[in-house]
Amino acid sequence: MDFSSFLTSLATSFAIFVVLMFLFTWLSRIPANSVVYYPNRILKGLDPYENGSRTRNPFAWIREALSSTEEDVVAISGVDTAVYFVFLTTVMGILVLAGLVLLPVLLPVAATGKIAVDKNSTSKGAFTELDRLSMGHVKETSSRLWAFVIATYWVSFVAYFSLWKAYKHVSDLRAAALRSPEVRPEQFTILVRDIPPPRRGQTRKEQVDTYFKEIYPESFYRSMVVTENKKVNDIWVELEGYKKRLARVEAVYAESKNAGKPEGTRPTNKIGFLGLSGKQVDTIEYLNEKINELTPKLEAEQKVTLREKQQASALVFFSSRVTAASAAQSLHARMVETWTVMDAPEACQLIWTNLPKSFYERQIRQCIVYVIVFLTIFFYMIPIGFISAFTTLDNLKKLLPFLKPVINQNVIKTVLEAYLPQIALIVFLGMLPKFLLFLSKAEGIPSKNHAIRATSGKYFYFSVLNVFIGVTVGGTLFSTFKDIEKNPNSIVSLLASSLPANATFFLTYVALQFFVGYGLELSQIVPLIIYHLKRRYLCKTEAELKEAWAPGDLGYETRIPGDMLILTIVLCYSVIAPVIVPFGVIYFGLGWLVLRNQALKVYVPSYESYGRMWPHIHTRILAALILYQVTMFGYFGVKKFRFTPLLIPLPIVSFIFAFICRNRFYRFFQCTALEVACRELKEAPNMELVFRSFLPPCLSADKPNDDHFEDALPNVSQSGSFA
Amino acid sequence: MDFSSFLTSLATSFAIFVVLMFLFTWLSRIPANSVVYYPNRILKGLDPYENGSRTRNPFAWIREALSSTEEDVVAISGVDTAVYFVFLTTVMGILVLAGLVLLPVLLPVAATGKIAVDKNSTSKGAFTELDRLSMGHVKETSSRLWAFVIATYWVSFVAYFSLWKAYKHVSDLRAAALRSPEVRPEQFTILVRDIPPPRRGQTRKEQVDTYFKEIYPESFYRSMVVTENKKVNDIWVELEGYKKRLARVEAVYAESKNAGKPEGTRPTNKIGFLGLSGKQVDTIEYLNEKINELTPKLEAEQKVTLREKQQASALVFFSSRVTAASAAQSLHARMVETWTVMDAPEACQLIWTNLPKSFYERQIRQCIVYVIVFLTIFFYMIPIGFISAFTTLDNLKKLLPFLKPVINQNVIKTVLEAYLPQIALIVFLGMLPKFLLFLSKAEGIPSKNHAIRATSGKYFYFSVLNVFIGVTVGGTLFSTFKDIEKNPNSIVSLLASSLPANATFFLTYVALQFFVGYGLELSQIVPLIIYHLKRRYLCKTEAELKEAWAPGDLGYETRIPGDMLILTIVLCYSVIAPVIVPFGVIYFGLGWLVLRNQALKVYVPSYESYGRMWPHIHTRILAALILYQVTMFGYFGVKKFRFTPLLIPLPIVSFIFAFICRNRFYRFFQCTALEVACRELKEAPNMELVFRSFLPPCLSADKPNDDHFEDALPNVSQSGSFA
Repeated sequence: MDFSSFLTSLATSFAIFVVLMFLFTWLSRIPANSVVYYPNRILKGLDPYENGSRTRNPFAWIREALSSTEEDVVAISGVDTAVYFVFLTTVMGILVLAGLVLLPVLLPVAATGKIAVDKNSTSKGAFTELDRLSMGHVKETSSRLWAFVIATYWVSFVAYFSLWKAYKHVSDLRAAALRSPEVRPEQFTILVRDIPPPRRGQTRKEQVDTYFKEIYPESFYRSMVVTENKKVNDIWVELEGYKKRLARVEAVYAESKNAGKPEGTRPTNKIGFLGLSGKQVDTIEYLNEKINELTPKLEAEQKVTLREKQQASALVFFSSRVTAASAAQSLHARMVETWTVMDAPEACQLIWTNLPKSFYERQIRQCIVYVIVFLTIFFYMIPIGFISAFTTLDNLKKLLPFLKPVINQNVIKTVLEAYLPQIALIVFLGMLPKFLLFLSKAEGIPSKNHAIRATSGKYFYFSVLNVFIGVTVGGTLFSTFKDIEKNPNSIVSLLASSLPANATFFLTYVALQFFVGYGLELSQIVPLIIYHLKRRYLCKTEAELKEAWAPGDLGYETRIPGDMLILTIVLCYSVIAPVIVPFGVIYFGLGWLVLRNQALKVYVPSYESYGRMWPHIHTRILAALILYQVTMFGYFGVKKFRFTPLLIPLPIVSFIFAFICRNRFYRFFQCTALEVACRELKEAPNMELVFRSFLPPCLSADKPNDDHFEDALPNVSQSGSFA
Repeated sequence: MDFSSFLTSLATSFAIFVVLMFLFTWLSRIPANSVVYYPNRILKGLDPYENGSRTRNPFAWIREALSSTEEDVVAISGVDTAVYFVFLTTVMGILVLAGLVLLPVLLPVAATGKIAVDKNSTSKGAFTELDRLSMGHVKETSSRLWAFVIATYWVSFVAYFSLWKAYKHVSDLRAAALRSPEVRPEQFTILVRDIPPPRRGQTRKEQVDTYFKEIYPESFYRSMVVTENKKVNDIWVELEGYKKRLARVEAVYAESKNAGKPEGTRPTNKIGFLGLSGKQVDTIEYLNEKINELTPKLEAEQKVTLREKQQASALVFFSSRVTAASAAQSLHARMVETWTVMDAPEACQLIWTNLPKSFYERQIRQCIVYVIVFLTIFFYMIPIGFISAFTTLDNLKKLLPFLKPVINQNVIKTVLEAYLPQIALIVFLGMLPKFLLFLSKAEGIPSKNHAIRATSGKYFYFSVLNVFIGVTVGGTLFSTFKDIEKNPNSIVSLLASSLPANATFFLTYVALQFFVGYGLELSQIVPLIIYHLKRRYLCKTEAELKEAWAPGDLGYETRIPGDMLILTIVLCYSVIAPVIVPFGVIYFGLGWLVLRNQALKVYVPSYESYGRMWPHIHTRILAALILYQVTMFGYFGVKKFRFTPLLIPLPIVSFIFAFICRNRFYRFFQCTALEVACRELKEAPNMELVFRSFLPPCLSADKPNDDHFEDALPNVSQSGSFA
C-alpha cells in the first residue's frame, strides 16, 4: 500500500467519522430517540439530560464524560465497567509514556539512517515517507540500533509499572465494593456440586441438610437442591408465551376499537401449523383457555420436580457472610471430587443445566473443548473453503428451489457470484463469538459471566493468532505451519521479517477501527434504525416497546479481544514503526471518551463480578508484551545486530513479573478475603428474601408463602428454617 | 567385577548378617540391655516381652512383627510410621508383581539370546553367568526385544495400580486419625504470619485480637504473639544447665558418701575458663547461688519479652476445631503477603526463629537455598578435591602443631596418607544430611517436620543424581556435564549404554545394604556400645541415664532417601537385568520385618504429621519410574530396536498420572477437610491447657496461674479469655 492510498483511506475514515458525529449530535436531540441514546438514565428514573435543557451544547457529552469520576461509573454502571476503564487508561498510559520517549528519540534516528531502498521496508518496496520513519530504514549491524534496544526495554518497564499500579487499583475497587453494607444474596450463598449419592432412604435434601448442619450448626440457614427443570421450564415458557401474546392481542383489539368500528375487531387466528391452517378461533378466548389449562399443570409439575427430580448439586445459605466466604474456600470432603464448594454467582447468572455435571465430566469436557478450539483456530479455513466450493449458485438453485426467482435476477446474480465465497467467511466470523460462547458453556462452567470471560479468552487467541500472525506472514496459520514444520526456529524470524512490510496495512486498520468503529458506537445508527422499525411495525404493547429499546451490556466477549488485538498490533510495531503509537493513543483515548458516554448513558450491565475479569486482561496484556519482546528479538536478529542476545532477559522478566503478580494479587479475585466480608451490614439480612432470589423463575410461585416447598422440606428442618 | 568376586562379596555380607543376627538374639535377652532393645515399650510402661517369660524363642520377634496389625502400629508409633510401612509394602508389591512376570518371561528370553561376547555386557567384557540373564545378551534389533517392551509396560502399570491404592489407603489412615475424639492442641490453633505493622498506639496483641475478634466473634478464644526470645532463652538455658549440673553433682556427692568417708567428699570446681583455672569453690553452694541469682532475672526478662519484644507473627486459638480448620484455608487479607494463615504444627515442632520472617524474605531465602543445593549437587567434588589437596600431612603438621606426636607415628602416618583424601569425602557425606537440614531450616520453614521432609527431598536428589547417575556414567555429574554440553541428547544414550555394565556393582550394593545395613539396624550394636560406655563413665543421675538410652525416631531424612535410591536402582535394572528384582524384594521385605520390630519396640516418634510425607514419597516414586522409563527408551535405542518410539507414551502417562493423583488426593494432605474436623470430641476442650501447651519453655512459669501474662493482655480481653 503506498503512501497516497494510505492517506486516502485515512481521509475517508475521518470523513465517515465526521458524518457520524454530526448524525449523533442531531439525532440525540430528538426526544423520540432518547430511549436509544439515554436508556441507562431512563431506566434509573433520571432525566436524559443532566440539566433538562433542550438547547444543549453539541459537545456537552464530552464535558460530561471528562468530568465524571470513577465513583459515578461504579454507581451507575458497576465495578466491572470501572475496571474496563482502568484497562483503557492503563493501556493509554503505557502508550503515552512509551511514545514520550520513542517518538522524539527513534524517529530522528530512523529518519537519518540511510538512503538506499531496503526490500524489508514498511511499504513492500515502494519508498515512502513512512519508510524513513521506521526501523527498516536503519542499516544492518548499525550502532544506531542501540537506541531501539533501549526503546524496547523502556516500553517493557513502562508496561510493568503501569500494570502493577493498575492491579493494585483494581484490587482496591473490588475491596471497596465487597465491603458494601448492602445485602447481596450471593454473598450469603455457596454453590455445592458433585454431591455423592445419598444413603438408602434418605432424600438429597436431607443429605445436604444433615451434612452442612453438622459442620455449621449455628450459621447454616437453609439449602436449595438443584432440580432437573426441563419439563417444568417448558411448561413455564409456553405459559409465559401465551400471556405475552394475550397482552399483545388485547392491545391490538383496543387499538382497533379506536381505529375502526366502536366495538372493535376481535382478532382471530388459525390454530394449525404456524397459524396457516386449521380451525379459526377467537384469539383472546383461545389464549385465556390455554392459560387456564396450563397454570394448574405448571403447579403440579413444580411439585413433582421439587420432590422427585433432585440432582447432585445444591445452593446452601448461611446467615453470616464470613461463614459463606470461608466455606467457599475450604475443603469439605477428603476427596477433592466430592462436595466441591465455591462462591455462588448472582442468581441470574447461574447456568442451571451445568450445575449437576460431575467433577470428572467437567474435566473431560474442558479437554474436548480445548481441542475443538485449537482445531478451529488452526484449521478453520478448511471447512470454509469447502463450503465456498459447495455453495456455488448452481448448487444453491438445486437445494433451495424456491429461491430461483430471486437468484435469477441479473443484478443479484452477479453480486452473489462475486461475493459468495467471502460470504461464507463473513458469516463464519460473525457467528464465531456465539460458537465460542456455546463451547465455553459446554465446558460445564456454572456461571454466565465466567463463560463470557472464557469466550473472551478464546476469541483473543483466535484474533491474535489468525488476524495478526496470519496476516503478517501472509496467509493462514495452517499454511504457515507447513513452513514452520521444516524449521521450527524460523517462526520468529519469519514473523520479524514480514512485520515491517505490513506496517501501513495495520496503521490503516487501527485508524479504521477508531474512526468508523467508535463513530458507529457513539451514533448508534444501527440500533436506532432497528428500534424505529420495530416500533412502527412490530410493537403493540408497552412491554414489547420497552423490550425493543432495552440496551445490552458492554459485550466484553468481543469488545476486549478487539481492544487487545489493537494493543498487540500497536505494541509489536511500537519500536519498528513508532508512528503507530499516536494512532494507538487516539484509539484508546477516543474509546475512553466514547465509552464513558455510553457507560453513563446507554449500556446497562447484566451482571456484576466485582472485577473478576481483570486478572485475565492483565495476563493477556503480558502475553501481547511477550509476543512483542520475542518479535523484537527476531527482528534484531534479522538486522544482524551483534548484541541481540541482550534482549533474551526480557521475556524471562515478563514471565517472572506475571508469576509475582499472580502470587500477590490473584487469590483475592478468586475468593473473598474475610476481613472484607466481616464488615457490618446496614441491616440484618432477610434470609427469606435471599433464599427466594435464587429460585429459578419456573419454580417460583405467585403465592406469598412457599407452601409448595413443604414437600421438599424434611419434617425436621421445617421449624428451624425460617429466619 | 566378575562372577566369583560377586559371589564372594555376597557371601561375606551374608556372613556378617548371620553374625549380627546371632548377636541380636543373644544380647536382647540380657535384661540390662532391654533399654536399648525395647525402649518404646518401656517408655509406655509395658513389659519388654509380651508374655514376660525369660525363655523366649529366638525367633519370637519375627512372629510378633508378622502378627502385628496396622492399628497396633498407629497406636504405638503413630500414623507417620504406619505410612512408612505402607511405602514399604507398596514398593514390595510393585517389585513382586513385576517379578512374577519379569522373571519367568525375561530370563529364558535373555538366556537363549545369543552366544557371542557383547562389549555392553553386564560385566564389562567378562563373560559370566549374569550376562546370560540380562538384556545385554539379546542381539540388536532382535524381535525378542518385544518381550522387554511388554515388560516395561507391565512394570509401569503395576506401579500405577499400586500407587493409586496406596494413596487411597494413606488418605483413609489420615482421616481416621484426624477424626479422633482426642483433644489435640494443634487442631484448635492457627499460625498467623506476615502481620502488618500495628497502628500508632496499638500493641501487636491488641491488633491481632481486634482483627480476629471482628472476623470470628464467637469462636475466637485467645492469641499468643510470638516474641523475640533470644535473651530470655539464653538465660533459661543457662539456668537449666545449672539445675542439671546440680542434680548430677548431688548424685556424685551421695555416691561418694557411700564409697569413701561417711560424710562424703564435697565436690569442688574452679570457676575459670573451662573449669581449668580460677578460684576453687564448693560446687553445690556455687550452683545454688547461681540458680538463685538467675531465677528472678529470668522472670524479669520474661516480662520484658512479653511486653516489648512482640514480633509480626502469632498463634491464634479457637474454641472450635471446624473454625480453626476453615480459617487455616481461607484468605484473610486482600494481599496475599499479609496476614498469612496456616494450620499450626505441634507445639514442639515450631521453629520459633523462623516465624517472624516475612513473605518475601521467605521466597528469596528459598531461591537462594535452591541455588546452593543445585551447586552442592553438581559441584561438590571441587571443594572436596581442594580440601584433599590442602590437607596433606605436611600442611596438617603446620596448622595443628599439637598433633605432631600423633601423626609422626609410622602406622598412623601410612594410614592417613593413604586415606586422607577419602576421609574428606567421607566426612562430607556424613555431614551432608545435617548441612541440608540446616539449609532447609534457613528457608524459613515454620515446622521441624516440614524441614525434615524438605531435607529428605534434597538428599534424595543428591543421592540419585550423584550416586546413581554419577557412578553409572563413570564419574561425577560435573565431568559428565561437559560431555553432555556438546550434545544434550546424548545423556539418555550415555546412561543407557553404561547402565548394564554396572549391574553387578549395584547387585552387590543392594545386597550389602540389606544384609549389613539391616543387620546393624536390628542388632543395634553401635547404640548398645555407646549406651554402656555412657552408663559406666558418664551418667551420674537417673535423668542422665534415661537420656543415654533415649531412642530417636525413625530418622526419615536419611532413611527414605536411602530406600528410594535402592528403589531407583532396582527399577532401572528391572528389565535390563531382572535378577535384581529378587534382591529388591528381599531388601524391602527384610526391611519391613526388621523395622516392624524396631517401630514396635525401639523407636519413639518425635512428631506426628498424620502422613504428610506420603505425597512427597509418591512423587519421588514416580520420579524414579520416569527415570526408568526414559532409561529404557534410551537403551532400546542403543539396541537399535525399530519400535523404540512405542515407549514414548510411558513418561507422558506417568506425568498425567502424577497430575491426576495430585488433583484428587493432595489437598487433603495440605489442609483438614471440614467433615473430618466436625466430629464430636470426647469432652469439651480445656482451652487453657491448649494455650499453655504452646508456650515456649523459656516463657512458661512454674506458678499455676499466668499472672505474668497480664502485662501482655489488653484490658479488654482479660475477662473473656479464660475458658
